[in-house]
Amino acid sequence: MADIAFIGLGNMGLVLAKTAAKAGFDTVVWNRTADKAKPLQELGLIVAAGPKEAILTSPVIVVCVYDYEAADEILRQVGCAEALEGRVLVQLTTATPRTAKATHDWALQQGIFYLDGEIIAYPSDIGSDAARILVSGDEKALVTAAPLLRAFAPEIEYLGSDPSKASALNLATLSASLGRIIGTLNGAAICEAANIPLDQFYKNITKDADQDSDALIKSLKKIASGDLETAEATVEVWAGTSDYMTEFAVEAGYSPEISEFMRKLFDKAIKKGFGNHDVGALINILRS
Amino acid sequence: MADIAFIGLGNMGLVLAKTAAKAGFDTVVWNRTADKAKPLQELGLIVAAGPKEAILTSPVIVVCVYDYEAADEILRQVGCAEALEGRVLVQLTTATPRTAKATHDWALQQGIFYLDGEIIAYPSDIGSDAARILVSGDEKALVTAAPLLRAFAPEIEYLGSDPSKASALNLATLSASLGRIIGTLNGAAICEAANIPLDQFYKNITKDADQDSDALIKSLKKIASGDLETAEATVEVWAGTSDYMTEFAVEAGYSPEISEFMRKLFDKAIKKGFGNHDVGALINILRS
Repeated sequence: MADIAFIGLGNMGLVLAKTAAKAGFDTVVWNRTADKAKPLQELGLIVAAGPKEAILTSPVIVVCVYDYEAADEILRQVGCAEALEGRVLVQLTTATPRTAKATHDWALQQGIFYLDGEIIAYPSDIGSDAARILVSGDEKALVTAAPLLRAFAPEIEYLGSDPSKASALNLATLSASLGRIIGTLNGAAICEAANIPLDQFYKNITKDADQDSDALIKSLKKIASGDLETAEATVEVWAGTSDYMTEFAVEAGYSPEISEFMRKLFDKAIKKGFGNHDVGALINILRS
Repeated sequence: MADIAFIGLGNMGLVLAKTAAKAGFDTVVWNRTADKAKPLQELGLIVAAGPKEAILTSPVIVVCVYDYEAADEILRQVGCAEALEGRVLVQLTTATPRTAKATHDWALQQGIFYLDGEIIAYPSDIGSDAARILVSGDEKALVTAAPLLRAFAPEIEYLGSDPSKASALNLATLSASLGRIIGTLNGAAICEAANIPLDQFYKNITKDADQDSDALIKSLKKIASGDLETAEATVEVWAGTSDYMTEFAVEAGYSPEISEFMRKLFDKAIKKGFGNHDVGALINILRS
């Protein structure tokens, strides 16, 4: 009997399997494209003949593939569901709350102990303090899986038995990251147009990061309290800033579409009467 | 003779004038709406009768008003330009590179020593280590103004004599912040829809901030090197994430416009053949 079986050896799955083996766990792997398993075989990991064979080796099975559709295709192969019965299935494929819930319901019917895990880390951070995993689903399954998951990320945040919570909090966190990526790339275009070296830019945004976090926490607290009227930086002030960006983009000849989109959001908030409210009041235009 | 004169007493100007006085500088203030000067008068600051009168009191004049149009209206009043001759004019109003350059050229003609300063701080951070000021323009003027500016922000970053640089780097930095604000507010809407308390969300994004900075620095280095082909997180992976956000928004009944906009940007990058490149490749669709 091995300790853990991995299904899926993409960028992330490959690192997970290696990390488990390095941590001393007996590790079995399987991937649809057999080539990807070869480097692991050379490291001494056991490569199973198929997903069912991989599942049968271990009490804990980790699935980390491209998306839930790909996961479903594998897990609904002949014999897989039966093989999973009584075992712990940890889905580390990024999910929507709906797919996490659907897989949970399917697993429940099959007598499988299901956990939806969402990795907040890039592959290169796996096993370091920078990695975190959000988990929701079966609490008893977590007791079994936790020592293995901690090899990937020292911090495991359990969000309760509702299987959709980890996925929702992950999407929210990814949304913050993605907004930052897009705003930063627009900033990089500004720097290019102004002949400012990008290393000067990234020194600046790194210095700014803590301050931005503080300001955002203040805005989120205002949202939670329902009082968005007091503001250090208002919707209107930020709207003005987005105009400056558009003006410069047009002059400098790069695409103004990012700042124009931002302005459009602010305009909706201003039309609803939130112009002199905290920038957090923008949430009002997203709410139904 | 006073040490410093302030024109403009909005949220930021008010704090700047107070901070200068607290730091022991003889401080003169003027504001178009006289009411705003009253609390400062009570603190012992001298309130000038007009902008020209304020200018004549001090070797360094700080202007911090709503925008450059408002600043121009004030500074082009009868006698102001003449009064400014031979003095240091520090513009702390947020500018575009073009307006900073135009004001610099005007000041040069008038024999005024001009500095464009861009404050990277909220009013409540002024005077603390969290505040920074980017400056470009006349280097000799900076020698005169620096001791005063350091009362507002211990870190002054001088970007050279080209007056437009501080403004451009400020806009780039603000773009990164604004993207993060919008992504985070979208995340807050996700949390609301999924019944996740916002304090759990902001704990998560705070933990994530350093890691995001690291990932962004890697992407910016790739942009600077011209090699965006290797990636930990590709354009396609992030595009998939934006789809999950849209799917959840539609299901949960809040507006999907933020994630839909993100997807649109990614689609353009994918169409240009950057799907499996680093997410930083998105800059290619902004470039002219």
